[in-house]
Amino acid sequence: MIGKCLENVRKKTPLVHNITNYVTVNDCANSVLAIGGSPIMADEIEEVCDITAVCTSLNLNIGTLNKNTIVAMLKAGEAAAEMGHPVVLDPVGAGASRLRTQAAREIVEKVKLSVIRGNASEIKALIGESENTKGVDADENDVVTEANMDSIIGVAKAFSKKTSAVIIITGAIDLVTDGEKVYLVKNGHAMMRRVTGTGCMLSAITAAFIGANGENVAEACLAAVCAMGVCGERAYAELRKEDGNASYRSKLIDELYKLSPKRLEEEAKYEVY
Amino acid sequence: MIGKCLENVRKKTPLVHNITNYVTVNDCANSVLAIGGSPIMADEIEEVCDITAVCTSLNLNIGTLNKNTIVAMLKAGEAAAEMGHPVVLDPVGAGASRLRTQAAREIVEKVKLSVIRGNASEIKALIGESENTKGVDADENDVVTEANMDSIIGVAKAFSKKTSAVIIITGAIDLVTDGEKVYLVKNGHAMMRRVTGTGCMLSAITAAFIGANGENVAEACLAAVCAMGVCGERAYAELRKEDGNASYRSKLIDELYKLSPKRLEEEAKYEVY
Amino acid sequence: MIGKCLENVRKKTPLVHNITNYVTVNDCANSVLAIGGSPIMADEIEEVCDITAVCTSLNLNIGTLNKNTIVAMLKAGEAAAEMGHPVVLDPVGAGASRLRTQAAREIVEKVKLSVIRGNASEIKALIGESENTKGVDADENDVVTEANMDSIIGVAKAFSKKTSAVIIITGAIDLVTDGEKVYLVKNGHAMMRRVTGTGCMLSAITAAFIGANGENVAEACLAAVCAMGVCGERAYAELRKEDGNASYRSKLIDELYKLSPKRLEEEAKYEVY
Repeated sequence: MIGKCLENVRKKTPLVHNITNYVTVNDCANSVLAIGGSPIMADEIEEVCDITAVCTSLNLNIGTLNKNTIVAMLKAGEAAAEMGHPVVLDPVGAGASRLRTQAAREIVEKVKLSVIRGNASEIKALIGESENTKGVDADENDVVTEANMDSIIGVAKAFSKKTSAVIIITGAIDLVTDGEKVYLVKNGHAMMRRVTGTGCMLSAITAAFIGANGENVAEACLAAVCAMGVCGERAYAELRKEDGNASYRSKLIDELYKLSPKRLEEEAKYEVY
Repeated sequence: MIGKCLENVRKKTPLVHNITNYVTVNDCANSVLAIGGSPIMADEIEEVCDITAVCTSLNLNIGTLNKNTIVAMLKAGEAAAEMGHPVVLDPVGAGASRLRTQAAREIVEKVKLSVIRGNASEIKALIGESENTKGVDADENDVVTEANMDSIIGVAKAFSKKTSAVIIITGAIDLVTDGEKVYLVKNGHAMMRRVTGTGCMLSAITAAFIGANGENVAEACLAAVCAMGVCGERAYAELRKEDGNASYRSKLIDELYKLSPKRLEEEAKYEVY
Repeated sequence: MIGKCLENVRKKTPLVHNITNYVTVNDCANSVLAIGGSPIMADEIEEVCDITAVCTSLNLNIGTLNKNTIVAMLKAGEAAAEMGHPVVLDPVGAGASRLRTQAAREIVEKVKLSVIRGNASEIKALIGESENTKGVDADENDVVTEANMDSIIGVAKAFSKKTSAVIIITGAIDLVTDGEKVYLVKNGHAMMRRVTGTGCMLSAITAAFIGANGENVAEACLAAVCAMGVCGERAYAELRKEDGNASYRSKLIDELYKLSPKRLEEEAKYEVY
């Protein structure tokens, strides 16, 4: 199933409109190309509706947001939803500033989202349950563990039902839920946190996956999360002793490029909760 | 001849002012450094004239344009032209939004350009002949092939005569014309399309080439196009089985860095049409 | 001592708020992660005070400044200083445009800075002694050599006393002074100038070093400068014949990641002047 989702990305080459931060934007573009989509970045208020109209899906990422890009995200988000394009929200750093928290909540309220992906602190900040966000990383009190799993799953399912969006909470264990089904994904590697933007990249490729698998959003999200995790593992396995986090970043995108549907099926480690 | 053009870049270290998008800007800077120039990026309206005054050439790239950078491009473009600095326009995504098409056309109208470089869809959008631009890639109906070559050459020559700029149309076959001479370049590799920004990088190094070869713009453009193509081929030849598009991106810039005038002469595959 | 400074970075994981240019921002983020810190980038006026409040230190870099980010830098700088957070200023290209010179001087005047790091032309432009800045590189008349060393040291010490900031002037020989002590650092490699942003990366990791070594700013700065230089040398030593400046960039960050306190102590080449 998740292999089929990747196959569809490769076959359909979904065009992904990204309104995203300038820190990791190049990696997002190359990740979307690697997985088989085609990225376009555009954030000027006057053009976002035109751009989103020619695309398949939209990825909204609030890292390095500003007053103009917040308006652009809302406009593009509403236009995309009207046209039936799936929209991903990555609430980077929600909880770390009032502006981010407010902007993210306003997007959740006004835009019909297909997917919301963040770490546990960001998702809790959206819901109003935590103000723990420590910069762009999850607070240690919010890290998903076996111990607090039940509680976090409850939060995610409720938020999914409320928003009608698939919720993805990433961490040592990743969680994907459409409000009914819950998938737990145990792929990935700790070294992914030593590279900036692995979360952003995941959100960007998720937009490609759902752009090519519109009838099957939860599974497409699961496929994206597993893909990123499998590639994180493989990139780590290929590190040579002279390599550090910059080489790891490059290998991670290389692995997305080389990932086959068959390998994705074989190496994905997920379970239905 | 094209080897000599590269030699001049290495000798003169042209300072290239770039007003460019935030997606591929780092690769543009490192490509200019690789080929032997020195890049500076500056897009604030209040400083672009000062910056362009200390530079040799100017590269205007409308990817991720916004209302402020459009004004900055017009101001810098007019100032550069007044000072006799050669100016390159890269109309990224012209045709994909009205704002991009209009902004690109306004720059063509108001700024004395030395070079316009785009894919066939972008160039046609500038002229008013196509609205096919599919995101940032050429529409398949606009791809330059043996079959439609004559027609595209006619369009390019006419546009060159009208604007007095050298026109570069890149695709599987690249075309360079100053309105009289037409060069067809058959270097390059399909994998260049799996990395974001290879077009942007070409425009940036073209600005370095014409900055160092002001008396010889068409040949300098030819040299830039051949250089990018030769390096695209060599980067591909050096890929190991574990590499993907991220490694390819890095190797592409590495090859620009290592490219010698002799190798450029030997491996360039161009013909006068 | 400098080894201990690095140890503290690794132990404390200082959260570094960066208001920086969009050219080298990804490399700054990955460099901060590599050295052991945690980066966050945020430049919207309305959120910078919130962000800086949760961070340990602040890095202000004026490359690709604009009217909004200048205000954001001043606001964040003043807020950080009030909270006792150390602030680094990197006056990229000061001297190359009036706007940059003015903005940099205004920051120096209004913000209590802990560190100012630039090349000799930039620092002189701040003081009003030179308008030689050639783009983002030091003018050749300003390059620090054995011959003009005494004069430059005098300038740096006076500027340090005036601002109460540690002054770092980088070049073939790097200089670090707190107004009394002067360190000369002879690490580094010429190839660092063939990659965009090695200066920006140094400023970013300096913010991490002083964030983790607040009681010892001058030594923390020395440690950062030596770390960058040692890694520049090691990255060069690891280049293969097929590598160019893009691979060098990646290896440079990899070396920051792998750098141990012991190696830093052993390979640092500095002297007290």
